[in-house]
Amino acid sequence: MEQRAYPLEGMTVLDMGHIYNGPYAGFMLAMAGANVIKIEPLKGEHLRHRGKEKNHSVPFALLNSNKRCITLNLKAPRGREIYLEMVKKADVVLENFAPDAMDNMNLGWDVLSAANPRLVYGCSSGYGRSGPRRDDLAMDLTVQASSGVMSVTGFEDSPPLKAGAAVCDFSGGVHLYAAIVTALVERERTGKGRMVEVSMQEAIFASLASNLGMYYSMGQKEPPRTGNQHGGLSISPYNVYPTRDGYAAINCTNDGHFHNLLRAMGREEIKDDPRYETNHDRALILDEVNELVSGWTKTLDKDDLLDISRKHGFPCAPVRGLDEVVNDEHLHERGMLKWMDHPELGRIALQNSPLRFHDSPLMPIEPSADLGAHNREIYGEWLGIAADELDAMERDGVI
Amino acid sequence: MEQRAYPLEGMTVLDMGHIYNGPYAGFMLAMAGANVIKIEPLKGEHLRHRGKEKNHSVPFALLNSNKRCITLNLKAPRGREIYLEMVKKADVVLENFAPDAMDNMNLGWDVLSAANPRLVYGCSSGYGRSGPRRDDLAMDLTVQASSGVMSVTGFEDSPPLKAGAAVCDFSGGVHLYAAIVTALVERERTGKGRMVEVSMQEAIFASLASNLGMYYSMGQKEPPRTGNQHGGLSISPYNVYPTRDGYAAINCTNDGHFHNLLRAMGREEIKDDPRYETNHDRALILDEVNELVSGWTKTLDKDDLLDISRKHGFPCAPVRGLDEVVNDEHLHERGMLKWMDHPELGRIALQNSPLRFHDSPLMPIEPSADLGAHNREIYGEWLGIAADELDAMERDGVI
Repeated sequence: MEQRAYPLEGMTVLDMGHIYNGPYAGFMLAMAGANVIKIEPLKGEHLRHRGKEKNHSVPFALLNSNKRCITLNLKAPRGREIYLEMVKKADVVLENFAPDAMDNMNLGWDVLSAANPRLVYGCSSGYGRSGPRRDDLAMDLTVQASSGVMSVTGFEDSPPLKAGAAVCDFSGGVHLYAAIVTALVERERTGKGRMVEVSMQEAIFASLASNLGMYYSMGQKEPPRTGNQHGGLSISPYNVYPTRDGYAAINCTNDGHFHNLLRAMGREEIKDDPRYETNHDRALILDEVNELVSGWTKTLDKDDLLDISRKHGFPCAPVRGLDEVVNDEHLHERGMLKWMDHPELGRIALQNSPLRFHDSPLMPIEPSADLGAHNREIYGEWLGIAADELDAMERDGVI
Repeated sequence: MEQRAYPLEGMTVLDMGHIYNGPYAGFMLAMAGANVIKIEPLKGEHLRHRGKEKNHSVPFALLNSNKRCITLNLKAPRGREIYLEMVKKADVVLENFAPDAMDNMNLGWDVLSAANPRLVYGCSSGYGRSGPRRDDLAMDLTVQASSGVMSVTGFEDSPPLKAGAAVCDFSGGVHLYAAIVTALVERERTGKGRMVEVSMQEAIFASLASNLGMYYSMGQKEPPRTGNQHGGLSISPYNVYPTRDGYAAINCTNDGHFHNLLRAMGREEIKDDPRYETNHDRALILDEVNELVSGWTKTLDKDDLLDISRKHGFPCAPVRGLDEVVNDEHLHERGMLKWMDHPELGRIALQNSPLRFHDSPLMPIEPSADLGAHNREIYGEWLGIAADELDAMERDGVI
């Protein structure tokens, strides 16, 4: 197979991201071939310090592979000068600070685009740059609360619950990537950069589609939480069922799947019961359908159930723990995960990007770098600052 | 302010998506200015028929605004010819069928790229096109199970639970958009299209970052589910707390936030207790911290608590139901939601794209079209097929 260059080769990104949202966007840009320079304050971004190690937490390592890491004090006059030098040579700046943070340093879009009209400036925050809630402090947890995600997660009789994964932070991050790359398409055609913006709350809204369907069908009333059942309670069987050794999800999205399930169960006669005829019929007797299915699944191991589902053709997946996921043969065979020796953290399964560009090899993963590891390379070799000036800048707290 | 064209104006997309994943990618392309043609089988894609109405369910309406809708029977020889005519004139084809579906119709990447070497072909499926689980049937629920999302959602003593929102489907969809647009950047520079691929399981993996941090810190042991607490149990306070009228999330990501919270509570003396000094200290006494905070929050209404948090500067958000979200003044002021009269569904708050391109007006929302509504426009005006041939194609079940 022909081996092509990566799609974003030659693009230079200044990644000012911190925690999850911005760094995920920068990570995806790096894995698509861009030259990503991560700019951190002198003490390092927060996520470095969430673990026991000096320089890297596990989440930091997962999101900052393949970036060159430099430190820069943007409040020092010389730091600001150097930043603008880099902006002139860059294609993209990305950040996920509070809405006014860059403007407050006089490094907002107006200043940066004047320095480089070809620049794409991507920013993401909890609620965006306009509207009455723009300044509310936002993290994954609070956006899960305000966006409605919590209200639809959990069992009907339990309190509202967050999704255990940081879905709002990461939905923000991939939308930020998407917005930036969209502006790059335009920039290639017009020569002109653009400011693009993503609100985390808006980035998760679409995923409530099933729940909103139920909300409107109930005459704009709050739907009950549905546990592991369909958000619209309109598909059956659709649930997590007990197995001998854990749980498995089964989801029959059409009548054919259900008939295949009945065949697997040895209960084909149920097909002729009019109460089970269509998905619409079965959705009216959810509890009875769930009892039928779980009576069968609890006699099986979850992986055997998966094999049976493959043979008979109905959607099924064992509920897997993190240990099973990290060791997932499928993810490793595809190169999405790779066991690596991280210089500080030791053996860890580092991730690739979910964006797969056929005809290019998978981007080799380079473990996250120490704080300031590339200061000499970027400031010296790329910007041409002399070694003795770099020494002075280090002494003076500029880098 | 200068009003610029939308970034993807002039791009033509053939959206073969169904349900959530593909259609969300197509929706975002349309809202970024692309000319999106949704191609459906003669009976319409599944999601049209999930509600009571003939042509549109609420989720369908949310995801298919601003697309022109045509029907096409790809298995009819004339349907296939017409499809290839459109591919020659298009920039993007996207689909989220099972991995082999398009190849089985002899309309896979090889055939389409031979017809149009500038084409970008984007596809997304549950597990991708390679690896031992490529053919497992996949929907949001089963991918939530197999990806580990369920294992980290729920309370420690409760069964694993899905996120109530369809986070795997939509994470797949926005990553698919991202992959397509990345290939368009490259296409603008090289003139050459590309096949790009997204696995839903891979698209949600990164969001487990906190949980994976805990998994490794426990020596690669399965962490407990943490309810509404931090996935790594390493931030405190971080939880959902009861209020007089519901719940609110509070998340103090740094000591400053915690001190502000103490000031709001009138409990500043706690700052001097060494057990509360740093976040690390507080994470060791999670239950005690939670009790302290909830003892205060339960005396307040959730919106009053939000006002207090704004005044004192700590992250807080009321847990809001769908009715509050759909009527959210902030989302409406920003144009993310707009009450519209949908021709079939009546009054509904339709969504815009989370990608916001400064200097262009927000894309006006055009409600989803009926099945085949644009057959005459696309096949007649765009492809130049004569009216009597179109009549014959309708009669013969081609369109």
